[in-house]
Amino acid sequence: MDKRKAFEKPIGFRDLLPAVTAKKRFIENKLQDLFHQWGYLEMKTPTLEYDETVGAASKIPGAKMFKLLDRSGNPLVLRPDMTSPIARVVSSILKDQEMPIRLSYHSNVFRAQENEAGRIAEFFQSGIELIGEGTPDADAEILALAVEALKLLRVGSFRLVVGHTGYLNGILEEWVEDQAIRDILKTYLSDKNMVGYRDKVKEVVSSEKGVKALLSILELQGDITKLEEGLEQTESTSARNSIDDLKKIWRLLKLYNAQENVTFDLTLVPHLEYYTGMVFEGTAENTGFPICGGGRYDTLLKTFNNPQQEIGFALKINRILDISQLTPLTEKIIKVVYDLERQEEALAYAIQLRKQSAARIETLRIDDKSPSDLPSDEDKEVIWFVREGQNKNE
Amino acid sequence: MDKRKAFEKPIGFRDLLPAVTAKKRFIENKLQDLFHQWGYLEMKTPTLEYDETVGAASKIPGAKMFKLLDRSGNPLVLRPDMTSPIARVVSSILKDQEMPIRLSYHSNVFRAQENEAGRIAEFFQSGIELIGEGTPDADAEILALAVEALKLLRVGSFRLVVGHTGYLNGILEEWVEDQAIRDILKTYLSDKNMVGYRDKVKEVVSSEKGVKALLSILELQGDITKLEEGLEQTESTSARNSIDDLKKIWRLLKLYNAQENVTFDLTLVPHLEYYTGMVFEGTAENTGFPICGGGRYDTLLKTFNNPQQEIGFALKINRILDISQLTPLTEKIIKVVYDLERQEEALAYAIQLRKQSAARIETLRIDDKSPSDLPSDEDKEVIWFVREGQNKNE
Repeated sequence: MDKRKAFEKPIGFRDLLPAVTAKKRFIENKLQDLFHQWGYLEMKTPTLEYDETVGAASKIPGAKMFKLLDRSGNPLVLRPDMTSPIARVVSSILKDQEMPIRLSYHSNVFRAQENEAGRIAEFFQSGIELIGEGTPDADAEILALAVEALKLLRVGSFRLVVGHTGYLNGILEEWVEDQAIRDILKTYLSDKNMVGYRDKVKEVVSSEKGVKALLSILELQGDITKLEEGLEQTESTSARNSIDDLKKIWRLLKLYNAQENVTFDLTLVPHLEYYTGMVFEGTAENTGFPICGGGRYDTLLKTFNNPQQEIGFALKINRILDISQLTPLTEKIIKVVYDLERQEEALAYAIQLRKQSAARIETLRIDDKSPSDLPSDEDKEVIWFVREGQNKNE
Repeated sequence: MDKRKAFEKPIGFRDLLPAVTAKKRFIENKLQDLFHQWGYLEMKTPTLEYDETVGAASKIPGAKMFKLLDRSGNPLVLRPDMTSPIARVVSSILKDQEMPIRLSYHSNVFRAQENEAGRIAEFFQSGIELIGEGTPDADAEILALAVEALKLLRVGSFRLVVGHTGYLNGILEEWVEDQAIRDILKTYLSDKNMVGYRDKVKEVVSSEKGVKALLSILELQGDITKLEEGLEQTESTSARNSIDDLKKIWRLLKLYNAQENVTFDLTLVPHLEYYTGMVFEGTAENTGFPICGGGRYDTLLKTFNNPQQEIGFALKINRILDISQLTPLTEKIIKVVYDLERQEEALAYAIQLRKQSAARIETLRIDDKSPSDLPSDEDKEVIWFVREGQNKNE
């Protein structure tokens, strides 16, 4: 074996040491308790899926997925998201279940990375899916649940930035006939390349009014007043209905006490192509990266011959682990150190202690080693069962 | 897309629906609490590893692993076990940590399956690793912890069957010079093909005393008296020392109150090749399959240039999920049904309820549907917020 590789992991993969793993389990349990209280039941799906089904439905570019062949030569992928596998389950095993269906997950997902540049290839998502409910009530419910989740996780100051694909598509269609050009404009917005967007609008839109409208949307980021401003910029029915949707959602968010964590950005374009309605992204003051994302994808289930609507979000657990102040309690550690002479006495003591206490009880047999050779355990209470004269504390 | 496949999963892969997933989370949390109390801290490793490192160390045949290439053409595997990745971590990131190191895991592992015959390709293991401790105390600790874990999981009547690779190798070496033939004999034992074993012994061993000794070990299955009987069959130092080890372990198991769940089988040959000392397998009355396995593998870490000894076990969670009586409490479900007219009132009620109660609170907006069209929810308490005359119970 190449010695260099004996200690190596594939590019973009990480080991999670005990402190982080304990925090992850703690956070996921707390989140699932919350999701469950709102009616969302956890499920699991396979790590490998057919490329033709889940791979295709996920809309993740093929080059970003880990692919392999099964023994019959069918292309498989390591799941790139959880929304697509759950769409498969909802359209098969659960297809006769009463709607709406509420499901949750805590799972790893995969993205192939070209080189080691801090980008991770396997990351953790906790999320929910609400299937079979097209009302603003459903949109408000998942936004409110995302707010509750981020409050619970104690990520510091955060906000959800909400947009609507129907508004953006509507106003773009009003002034730009060519789908390909509309896609280019959306890519500029998605990449937050405002200069590129401005230049392209000026290049392709001849009407002065159109240029003004399409540039004005860059200002549509902020509080609820931006919805009214957005309405003034467009005659598109789809765009105007989208604003109406967002206003209904906003009103419901007041009931959930979630308004103060929500702002609007009518230029928001999510990276995944399957969104069809309200979309959002969560950001926190303590990190430069989005910590959650979600929205409505009412056509995704059609991939699985299912007419139902769907909405959901995913929390980016790796980033949240870095900033969350929600941590397991500091624990008491007791170390029972013994030699062969007092072996039975020491082990009986440790066994008894485990029955009585929630502490972490370790045993250590030292035999010929002298206690004074042992490393100091400043964070542990050490109890000695060694022959006379050997007790470190004597 | 091929419609047949839209609903399909790759061969050997399963979806875990909410009831099983909830039980799995519950069981794993309880197990981790127990492991933690004994000093074992949970960690996680990547789903993908280099074939040359972890793939090779696992001793799993290449054809049983899922393989793929990374972008530089290096062969990767989906982890076939957790012992080998943890050996990698202990020999790299944790190599300067004080010994012994106690680690635990709750993870999926993978085996490629040729066809759909009930065999699963992705399964769940919960287990522990104790590194840097070669004493019978360590062997007894992991056996006792396995007994505690299976008691906690309420799997019904169970026992751990304990053997020792040193005994079997010693007595085989005493009478069979050729390593290849010894391996054939061990394969017969591993496959529980006692007829094949008998025939082969008679074929290859010329000494009458040797045949008698090698056939006698087939009787060495049962209680502690089998250890003395085993001692009488061999002059091999390694075999006799192994019996001595097992007797020391047995004595310590009394302290742990674990003797009654332990029996011996000196012909036990585990399927994995890396074992070097005490080995064991757990069986339960309620299932025909092993529910856990483990033992000592003191040379595994040498693969990673690490001289430390290691011992551990893994619980087979898929099988345990089928037979465990340890289940989450039955929950209260409250369903708040409303129409647009009473929307705010209903949602405010649901929000308030979630603050006060640990129940699962679902909301359902029905609008134009009549309550009498709704499916009955016999397991749920339904609370109606609908305009007059529409209440199903009125």
